[in-house]
Amino acid sequence: MIKKRLYTPGPTPVPEQIMLMMAEPMIHHRHPEFQEILTSVNENLKYLFQTSNGVMTLTSSGTGAMEASVANVLSKGDTAVYVNGGKFGERWGEILNAYVLNAVEIAMEWGTPVSPEQVVDTVKNNPETKAVYLTHSETSTGTATDIKAIAQAVHKHNNDIAVIVDGITSVGAMESKMDEWDLDIVVTGSQKGLMIPPGLAHIAVSERAWKLIEKSDLPAYYFDLKAAKKALDKNDTPWTPAVTLFIGLEKALKMLREEGIENVWARHRKLADAIREGCKALGLKLLSSSPSNALTAVYVPEGVEFKKFNSVIKQKYGITVAGGQGHLKGKIFRISHLGYYDELDMMTMMAALERTLVEVGANIKIGAGLTAAQEVFTK
Amino acid sequence: MIKKRLYTPGPTPVPEQIMLMMAEPMIHHRHPEFQEILTSVNENLKYLFQTSNGVMTLTSSGTGAMEASVANVLSKGDTAVYVNGGKFGERWGEILNAYVLNAVEIAMEWGTPVSPEQVVDTVKNNPETKAVYLTHSETSTGTATDIKAIAQAVHKHNNDIAVIVDGITSVGAMESKMDEWDLDIVVTGSQKGLMIPPGLAHIAVSERAWKLIEKSDLPAYYFDLKAAKKALDKNDTPWTPAVTLFIGLEKALKMLREEGIENVWARHRKLADAIREGCKALGLKLLSSSPSNALTAVYVPEGVEFKKFNSVIKQKYGITVAGGQGHLKGKIFRISHLGYYDELDMMTMMAALERTLVEVGANIKIGAGLTAAQEVFTK
Repeated sequence: MIKKRLYTPGPTPVPEQIMLMMAEPMIHHRHPEFQEILTSVNENLKYLFQTSNGVMTLTSSGTGAMEASVANVLSKGDTAVYVNGGKFGERWGEILNAYVLNAVEIAMEWGTPVSPEQVVDTVKNNPETKAVYLTHSETSTGTATDIKAIAQAVHKHNNDIAVIVDGITSVGAMESKMDEWDLDIVVTGSQKGLMIPPGLAHIAVSERAWKLIEKSDLPAYYFDLKAAKKALDKNDTPWTPAVTLFIGLEKALKMLREEGIENVWARHRKLADAIREGCKALGLKLLSSSPSNALTAVYVPEGVEFKKFNSVIKQKYGITVAGGQGHLKGKIFRISHLGYYDELDMMTMMAALERTLVEVGANIKIGAGLTAAQEVFTK
Repeated sequence: MIKKRLYTPGPTPVPEQIMLMMAEPMIHHRHPEFQEILTSVNENLKYLFQTSNGVMTLTSSGTGAMEASVANVLSKGDTAVYVNGGKFGERWGEILNAYVLNAVEIAMEWGTPVSPEQVVDTVKNNPETKAVYLTHSETSTGTATDIKAIAQAVHKHNNDIAVIVDGITSVGAMESKMDEWDLDIVVTGSQKGLMIPPGLAHIAVSERAWKLIEKSDLPAYYFDLKAAKKALDKNDTPWTPAVTLFIGLEKALKMLREEGIENVWARHRKLADAIREGCKALGLKLLSSSPSNALTAVYVPEGVEFKKFNSVIKQKYGITVAGGQGHLKGKIFRISHLGYYDELDMMTMMAALERTLVEVGANIKIGAGLTAAQEVFTK
């Protein structure tokens, strides 16, 4: 018997009780049962994002919310700065270019975070900048960016610039305080820290960003944030929502609120720390110089083929990890700590990792990774 | 004990076995298990749409696929004709206007279908027309439009014009043969004839439409059909798909294929016919002069308040029907035959309808509706 276990940074495992709630008979989205769900969801999303702004939920993947953050906020000919330090930073550039905007790229080596100074310098060199597009946790490299310091530095330089954050693998995993940090848009997706299946995206918008939205002349219909906000204020949605996913979302948000958001962040920090220490004790090299607590990107040891590693860990141990993307394909694997995981889940992962590495011929000391991880949890 | 029964034209009831399949442990969308699902889904969607064209599935509501049919197909300054005979025809106009296109409206009285002559005359008066936007089954009024005859007439007049069809409540319910009828784009949503929860939209595209797509200069990213097609050809998706809904979709498509699409259409025709005859036998007036087989729109009898009617049928009989939209709010109710219903489900509905009407003081003959419906099924 081999159990299947998912350790990918989205989709993440869904609590069994949530899966079963979503299997209940279908209800209609314009009837009171569903409005009750939306009311609870909308309230608890504010808590999750640490904001008093409304948080809109779109039926799409997180990329839809990223597009909404461009198409609603900017206007024809606008200049925006974006940081490209991985596949998801690159996506900001692709969206800005799809709308034929003046997209100024800050290209980072993958695994290295941008500094507040670099962002502010680029903004200074491009005084027409309306918005800065950032990635809080770059999923392709497992890298965290100090969005708090960047938002502060950008707004100190020019208080009209919107700071827009892809929080897709950070919200519900890493400390993120929209209002306190003065962030203008934060987006996330349902299949990440929120622990439910993919199909919903969430977007929170500040007063500063709404001012830009009022002036925007780019086309938007399905992702029109003004329509979404109008519906939100009535605990409604402009289009037919993914009803079953909202049912799961209501429960997931209640679980996170019950745990307490500070505890959720601390749990992710500890899980990530244990995996990082375990990997280091096995002599593995981590990719990122500023590791995210949502996932850990680890280099495949020299002399080991990723394909073989992945086949053993999946077929023999039932564990699905993520591989590398872009030029990192075949060079790294990525272990998720994001969402519905506890400390013992990380020990399970570490046990499978050690055994897989031995089987693919890596020179490691059995037990060293487990011991180091255990020490993080028990110290 | 009051059982809950859903008779709305989307969401529609989901087969219990599909709900439970969607509750299985989460899988990752870039791994072989999911690719097998996509391969089966993509093959069976062609059968459903009766086309050899690829059918792309987007993670959004049907409105997303409608927007994709505008943003990818037309170019700046283009002229398009659309038929507005209800809330969903109106939506074509809203989307065309959001993209600042030259939208030529054919306004119809709600409940009356457009004729091929009207469409061709309008196209003749607007010789720059690139595309015609139609609604096969207008859900707000329960009205069917003869898209076969219109497509034929339009293409006879000018073979370059794309005929684009909102098939959201018609695909999997009413006869619709994309290739044979020479339709250029057909869109639908998952929570309709496909019998699964909302959150997916499907879009099939002809060669003629692809030619327009190649030339389009309107912005599109999340709904970029070129990216969707590129992914489709590898049985992949450009963005993270709503994994659980695809799992349900695979099973639903297999059920429809097993029944046989001609039988699925015949079943809907019979269910609709029974409800229509039952309503007429009760002295109720139907809204549409060209009724759709997906749903039946019925006037609330004179002297009866919709609110009271709806409250009795819902609270006392557990049945959810849809009310009227726009200026028909409070004036009609709509009964769905769309998706996972059999003949006895319509008898259940008719039984509840008769009892509700008596309780709200309508002057009807108990048993007359049931008898007329039964006669449709037994003749």
